Amino acid sequence: MVTAHSVPSDSGLRAGGGRAPVGLVAGRGDFPIEMCEAARRAGVPGLAVIGMHGETDPAISGLADSLDWVYVGQLRRSIAALKRRGVEEVIFAGQVRPGRLFKGLRPDWTALRLLCRLKERNAESIFSAIGAEFQRCGLRVLPSTTFMEEALAPTGLLGRVRPGQAVREDIDFGVRIAREIGRLNIGQTVVVKRGTVVAVEAFEGTDKAIRRAGEIAHGGVTVVKVAKPGHDLRFDVPCVGMRTVESLRLAGARALVLHAGRTLLLRRERVLAACDAARIAVIGVEIGE
Amino acid sequence: MVTAHSVPSDSGLRAGGGRAPVGLVAGRGDFPIEMCEAARRAGVPGLAVIGMHGETDPAISGLADSLDWVYVGQLRRSIAALKRRGVEEVIFAGQVRPGRLFKGLRPDWTALRLLCRLKERNAESIFSAIGAEFQRCGLRVLPSTTFMEEALAPTGLLGRVRPGQAVREDIDFGVRIAREIGRLNIGQTVVVKRGTVVAVEAFEGTDKAIRRAGEIAHGGVTVVKVAKPGHDLRFDVPCVGMRTVESLRLAGARALVLHAGRTLLLRRERVLAACDAARIAVIGVEIGE
Repeated sequence: MVTAHSVPSDSGLRAGGGRAPVGLVAGRGDFPIEMCEAARRAGVPGLAVIGMHGETDPAISGLADSLDWVYVGQLRRSIAALKRRGVEEVIFAGQVRPGRLFKGLRPDWTALRLLCRLKERNAESIFSAIGAEFQRCGLRVLPSTTFMEEALAPTGLLGRVRPGQAVREDIDFGVRIAREIGRLNIGQTVVVKRGTVVAVEAFEGTDKAIRRAGEIAHGGVTVVKVAKPGHDLRFDVPCVGMRTVESLRLAGARALVLHAGRTLLLRRERVLAACDAARIAVIGVEIGE
Repeated sequence: MVTAHSVPSDSGLRAGGGRAPVGLVAGRGDFPIEMCEAARRAGVPGLAVIGMHGETDPAISGLADSLDWVYVGQLRRSIAALKRRGVEEVIFAGQVRPGRLFKGLRPDWTALRLLCRLKERNAESIFSAIGAEFQRCGLRVLPSTTFMEEALAPTGLLGRVRPGQAVREDIDFGVRIAREIGRLNIGQTVVVKRGTVVAVEAFEGTDKAIRRAGEIAHGGVTVVKVAKPGHDLRFDVPCVGMRTVESLRLAGARALVLHAGRTLLLRRERVLAACDAARIAVIGVEIGE
C-alpha cells in the first residue's frame, strides 16, 4: 500500500525541494511506534508526529522528525501544527483512552462544535467528523493500515496452539455476536464461554472487558475482536499487542480470534510466543462484509 | 391474574381435602419475599418454597408453609421436593448470581444433561429447558408476574424528577440499543450518556454494569432495563429494587428507564423516594414488540 501514500506530483514538492512529510497523530501503545518504524522502512520523506499528553509514549521522539504535543481534544492546534510542518497526508495510529471522552478531554472550539453536532457519540461518528475536519483543512487522512500490511492478521492458525471442538464452537458463536455488536457501533470485542456471552466491550476498552470476563467465567474464555461491517480503516482499526496478551493470560483465555485482514497484530513474534506459552490459540478468521 | 392461578377443578384437591399449595423457586433479593406476601394477599392455599443455599434470603422461612433447601443446580431434588409437597403450579422468582453458571453450580444429572444439550447458554435457553423439565414432571410454571401486577412498572414519569432534553434523547437511544442487546440474548441493561453506549450488561449482572458505567463516564448516565422481544414472563423478568437504586446512586445516574408492563419495580415507595432524593428520574416506557 505504499502506492496509497505516493504523493500527487503537483503537491509533492516543498519549498526546500523535498517531498512533504507524512503526519502521524499518535495515540497510546506500540502502534504509533511500529507505524513510525514501518514508515521509515517504506522510505517516507519525513514524519511529523502529533503526540498527546498522557497518551502517546514519549519514546516516539526518537523516531519522529518533528514532534508537537497537544492535549486530547485540541483539534485546531493539531491541524495547525501539521500544516506548519508542511504535511498533506495524515495517519491516525493508536487509541486514546476511551474514558477521555468523559474526563480529561480538553476540547477546543473546533472539537466542541464537532462533538455538539453529533447525536450519537461513538468511535465511528466521532472519528468520521474528525476526518471531515482534517480533510476540510486540506489534510488527506490515509488508512491506519498504510505501511502496516505485514502486521495485518492473516487467515488461519497463527500460533502453535490448536483450539479444541468446544472452543471452535465458541469461535463461531463469538464472531456472530461480535459482528452484531460492531454493527450497533457499541464496540469491537466480545468474550464468550460455552455458548454464553460473558462480556461485551462498550466504552471501557478491550482489556477491561477481557479481564472482567476472566473474573466472571473463571477462565476458559474465547476473545473475539473484529472490525465492524464497513469499518473505515482510517480510524480505530482493531489492534492487539502485548497488552492484550497480558489481559488474556490474566483471564485464563483459551483463544484469541482476530478478523483476518482487518486487525493489526503488533509485535507479532512476541505476541505469538507469549500466547503459545500460555496455551492460548490465536486464529485469524475470514469474515464477509 | 389470580385467575391464572385458579386450580383446575379435577386436580385442585389434595389428600387432606385442601387445595394444592403453590410452589415458589426462590432466588436472591426482595422479589421472592414480595412474591410470598403478594401470594398471601391473593389467598393462595399454601406456599411451598425451594430455597437455594447462598442465594435465597433465609428470612423467607417466616413466609413459607414449607421450605426445602437445595444447592443451585439441583434440579431433580427441587422437582422431587415440590412434588412431595403436593405442588402442581410453580413460580420462579428472583435471580441466582449469573456467575453461578461458571462457579458454585452443583448440577445434578438432570441439570447436567439439560446444560449439555444446549448449544447457546443464555438466560432464555437455560430457563426454557428448565421450564420444559418442570412441565415434563407435571409442574406447571406460572409467569413470575402472577400476583405481582401492582409491582409492574406503569407508563410515564414514576417519581418526581423530570428528565431534561439531553436525558430524553439518551432514553430514546438507550431503549433502541437495549432492545437489540435483548434480541441477541446478551442481557437486559445498557447504560448510555450523551449518545454513547457506556456499558452493556452481559453476564456480570445489572449492578456491576451500572457501577462500571459510572466509573467510566463520571456520572450523568441513563440506565435502561428492558424485557427482550417475546420475553417469556415465567423466567428472568426484569426487576429493579433498592439494590439497583444504590448502584444508580454510586454511578451518578440521571435516569432509570423501565419497560412498562414488563419490569417489576419492587419496594416501589422506597425506590421512588430514594431516586427523588438522588435526583434520578424514573420513567416507564411503552415498547412495542
